[in-house]
Amino acid sequence: MTISRTENGVYSIAPTPFTPDGSVDYTSIDRMVDFYTQAGVTGLTVLGVLGEAPKLTQEESVEIASRIITRADFPVIVGVSAPGFAAMKSLSGAVMDAGAAGVMIAPLRTLRTDDQITNYYRNASQAVGTDTPFVIQDFPLTFSVEMSVSVIARIANENANAVMLKHEDWPGLEKISALRALEEDGAMPRLSILCGNGGSFLDFETERGADGAMTGYCFPDTLVELVGLAGKGERDAAHDLFDAHLPLLRYEQQPGVGLAVRKYVFQRRGVLDYDAQRAPAGKLTDTARQEVDYLLDRLARRDSRAANLPK
Amino acid sequence: MTISRTENGVYSIAPTPFTPDGSVDYTSIDRMVDFYTQAGVTGLTVLGVLGEAPKLTQEESVEIASRIITRADFPVIVGVSAPGFAAMKSLSGAVMDAGAAGVMIAPLRTLRTDDQITNYYRNASQAVGTDTPFVIQDFPLTFSVEMSVSVIARIANENANAVMLKHEDWPGLEKISALRALEEDGAMPRLSILCGNGGSFLDFETERGADGAMTGYCFPDTLVELVGLAGKGERDAAHDLFDAHLPLLRYEQQPGVGLAVRKYVFQRRGVLDYDAQRAPAGKLTDTARQEVDYLLDRLARRDSRAANLPK
Amino acid sequence: MTISRTENGVYSIAPTPFTPDGSVDYTSIDRMVDFYTQAGVTGLTVLGVLGEAPKLTQEESVEIASRIITRADFPVIVGVSAPGFAAMKSLSGAVMDAGAAGVMIAPLRTLRTDDQITNYYRNASQAVGTDTPFVIQDFPLTFSVEMSVSVIARIANENANAVMLKHEDWPGLEKISALRALEEDGAMPRLSILCGNGGSFLDFETERGADGAMTGYCFPDTLVELVGLAGKGERDAAHDLFDAHLPLLRYEQQPGVGLAVRKYVFQRRGVLDYDAQRAPAGKLTDTARQEVDYLLDRLARRDSRAANLPK
Amino acid sequence: MTISRTENGVYSIAPTPFTPDGSVDYTSIDRMVDFYTQAGVTGLTVLGVLGEAPKLTQEESVEIASRIITRADFPVIVGVSAPGFAAMKSLSGAVMDAGAAGVMIAPLRTLRTDDQITNYYRNASQAVGTDTPFVIQDFPLTFSVEMSVSVIARIANENANAVMLKHEDWPGLEKISALRALEEDGAMPRLSILCGNGGSFLDFETERGADGAMTGYCFPDTLVELVGLAGKGERDAAHDLFDAHLPLLRYEQQPGVGLAVRKYVFQRRGVLDYDAQRAPAGKLTDTARQEVDYLLDRLARRDSRAANLPK
Repeated sequence: MTISRTENGVYSIAPTPFTPDGSVDYTSIDRMVDFYTQAGVTGLTVLGVLGEAPKLTQEESVEIASRIITRADFPVIVGVSAPGFAAMKSLSGAVMDAGAAGVMIAPLRTLRTDDQITNYYRNASQAVGTDTPFVIQDFPLTFSVEMSVSVIARIANENANAVMLKHEDWPGLEKISALRALEEDGAMPRLSILCGNGGSFLDFETERGADGAMTGYCFPDTLVELVGLAGKGERDAAHDLFDAHLPLLRYEQQPGVGLAVRKYVFQRRGVLDYDAQRAPAGKLTDTARQEVDYLLDRLARRDSRAANLPK
Repeated sequence: MTISRTENGVYSIAPTPFTPDGSVDYTSIDRMVDFYTQAGVTGLTVLGVLGEAPKLTQEESVEIASRIITRADFPVIVGVSAPGFAAMKSLSGAVMDAGAAGVMIAPLRTLRTDDQITNYYRNASQAVGTDTPFVIQDFPLTFSVEMSVSVIARIANENANAVMLKHEDWPGLEKISALRALEEDGAMPRLSILCGNGGSFLDFETERGADGAMTGYCFPDTLVELVGLAGKGERDAAHDLFDAHLPLLRYEQQPGVGLAVRKYVFQRRGVLDYDAQRAPAGKLTDTARQEVDYLLDRLARRDSRAANLPK
Repeated sequence: MTISRTENGVYSIAPTPFTPDGSVDYTSIDRMVDFYTQAGVTGLTVLGVLGEAPKLTQEESVEIASRIITRADFPVIVGVSAPGFAAMKSLSGAVMDAGAAGVMIAPLRTLRTDDQITNYYRNASQAVGTDTPFVIQDFPLTFSVEMSVSVIARIANENANAVMLKHEDWPGLEKISALRALEEDGAMPRLSILCGNGGSFLDFETERGADGAMTGYCFPDTLVELVGLAGKGERDAAHDLFDAHLPLLRYEQQPGVGLAVRKYVFQRRGVLDYDAQRAPAGKLTDTARQEVDYLLDRLARRDSRAANLPK
Repeated sequence: MTISRTENGVYSIAPTPFTPDGSVDYTSIDRMVDFYTQAGVTGLTVLGVLGEAPKLTQEESVEIASRIITRADFPVIVGVSAPGFAAMKSLSGAVMDAGAAGVMIAPLRTLRTDDQITNYYRNASQAVGTDTPFVIQDFPLTFSVEMSVSVIARIANENANAVMLKHEDWPGLEKISALRALEEDGAMPRLSILCGNGGSFLDFETERGADGAMTGYCFPDTLVELVGLAGKGERDAAHDLFDAHLPLLRYEQQPGVGLAVRKYVFQRRGVLDYDAQRAPAGKLTDTARQEVDYLLDRLARRDSRAANLPK
């Protein structure tokens, strides 16, 4: 069971639960996987930036991924971005052996020219193995690498295992339209396009041709409902649901702070025992927690999923 | 009439109106100034990045600023950022002579260390003249310069004419709290803090101690009402108004695209004759315009200012 | 008399002489032009980064360029890089009217993708006027813009007035070879390639197919002799001369410090009355001056041009 | 045997030898260690950027470091830079257990403000263990992190195990002078300062107060002699030796290309069986090899170490 070019729905970006002393919290991991199952997600993406992947040793990475893969009854994509191809190959091999559905590869921060970027993905494609489908992560805000539409088309044309795009360029709506137009013209193979950026443009991204979401917003159940409404063409209902969540979603999307918000809400929703991050940890101040509480209270008036959450 | 450390309210970032052939549209400039007057703004900031300042010759810059200053009955701040201090001095002198209330200075993109940044502002303070109050523009997303809280404190301590902060770091809520705490401790002089970033955190920024907004969102009248509600402590009402605008506000805040959205809405609101930008111009596709129209239609259900706008 | 695709020899990058109080030193400008004439340079490039262009107002820029053009009996290229096309157009028009032989255009620091870079040069080509030949400045170390060989080929193909490349990528030898190979294959029009980077690879660059140098090393007369030797195929003699100068040349090529070294040596050589820079100025410490003096003393043993320079 | 604040001499940066099929070449590793012993180096630094560290799995890294440590009769410093502290801690522990004399830590590319940099080194100091002496790597050209003199002083003051600076800022001479002045004023503890940048300013760096070199230039025996001459105050002789090597040294210092030059010369000198790099590999063209050969021939006239090298 590996990911394909026609994947759609919601792949949640899973955080990595820790206990306050910094050890991996496997109890919460199991509960979290069950939560995602109940939320109806299509799949899960683990060990990305917001999975605190760089804070893990490779042994821990493989163990966490394996634990999640074993417990989940849906496909799991594993982030294998690394400063070198040897580490990428080693981690990719381990998690695919453990049953991963594919891997996700971010570009190295130093890449600039179109040729540098496409060369990198050719090498990465070889490193993970051409039988291993991979996700291109297009996230300039975090990685400082700008991929033009034509570069993404080149990557898709040159690597048969490039099957999915985690779309989080900003702005990004016209990029989706341009990629879909190239596909229709036969200029590039179809990519599954799942959108990140916290979901902050998901209302329109689905209308532009995206296949769904790949993001970690703390209400994945909402994202599932939202993508479902969009799929059925219920535009106003989709936007109503989106708009109700936008104030919190925007708050969660703050760089650096976002993961702390996400873990805090997951803790309030009973998914995680702790909102702890491994050091160096981002932390919410008391004021910030109260702001999140206030946003949840306001959201509860429109979405019962936010109601009656214990503090 | 120059700006002070206690300035509060809404300073709108004004776009520069052009005709479709690229010439400056003075008719729309006059109408726009009158619109801002009716909107109740405290002041105006002109010739910033979103005023297409780099597309103007210096003669045009001075002429546009003078036209606006003459017509406005509120203070006008003029962006004087330049690659060198000679041009900065020359432009600053001209607009202050024309009656500007102060100038705004963005850091050079190449600045990295704390010392480089504070040296730059010391030189800039001299260039514009120590009698000319200036605004520090803290906008890492656009300028790639990160100013820590202690750097801003140093700038404020070292330059008596540094009186205002255009706050648009992201995330930024804790930064406001930290600056206000330093001020209370007497570690730095008070700065007027007006928030940018399209207003996307204005709901909480005012609660954290910001004095208001300095941003170009296409409903400045809403921003005025919002800051007023916050000032009166009507928290829920302020958030209700903010939340109603957030879907459009978020759409307008897209880098690169935002100015085109802003000018299009200003055109629909009857403020500008054209939504034209001078080349190289960002343009809205038909799909994007329809998305903005849809957002305005939805907004009109909650805010009459968005209702009945001609297309 | 405008520059062409077959230009060769040495175009010196001229500094802008100032007096200690920061005013333009026209007396030294005139003497400097005469010095370059005696040095046998093919042409001059003025108002580049090391000409302190960003510290000049536009009026000063035009006045300085005009003064040099009038006095020189060789072609003068003028740097017209600017944050916007309006200023670029305005300055370019003024200096071409004054008799400049062409203009030089550096890319904006924010350009990243191949398409962004080629779009920029298309717009710049229009801004300066398609009758105005221009130099592409490929200097990633300073401008943070990386232009691949294919991007340079695209710029050359798309803009008939792109006639020259100021080559200062690092490393750059293979780039020259690759460009010349594309030209031989008919894949791009010929460019005059003149090399910068202080001349630190000029010994091999000429062997790779470069047409000469465009750099500001404080012994332009040496560069002229060196390019002459290379042109006559006297390889060992060219390298002997180059090696003798390399210790000083390397010292002068330090970012930030280099201009101060250059002006100091020009002062010792009697070209400039002062080694002053306009604020914010880089300055040599006493120790650094003594290091330069020591290097000149050592050089004097091999090149009489360095001998008997008054302090 | 661990490194101290008074270390001086030459720590060579060792390349990692590979066979043409990409496996680690332990035969050449052993021969290389013996070569460094004969060259008289004070110590060795392994697994830095030019040791192709990012291309190794962690197991390989530990194995290579251990092999070198075991064979060497001088101290060995190991690069442990990593995207996260977990991997840094794990690698550092393993190599210190294997007998390393200390570790070297480069800053993360994303660090910008003074506080971010000093926070990072505090966390890194904890990660490697406060009993493990470490080297601060100050290399803005490669890592895009600029450390001011005051930041280096803060790192030295805050972390007792920060004992050495790999100095490769550019320009850097004044930085050495400024650090030594702070030390004399008692404003910071003494650091051993060893210079990198291929040695391209080593002639003056020792005069400014540096304790020696830490770089990978392909004639480490020359560097040892040079630092020895400088130590004995034989200024002219030191510069004569330096100047003879500068043409090759400069060629080797080219970013990206340098390692290929270094391995090629090591192969010609009989140190390595192959000049192979692990993929993605930089390669010398035939023309480039001939250029290096030419430089070696010229060098042989002045330094017998470059004579009679088999091709």
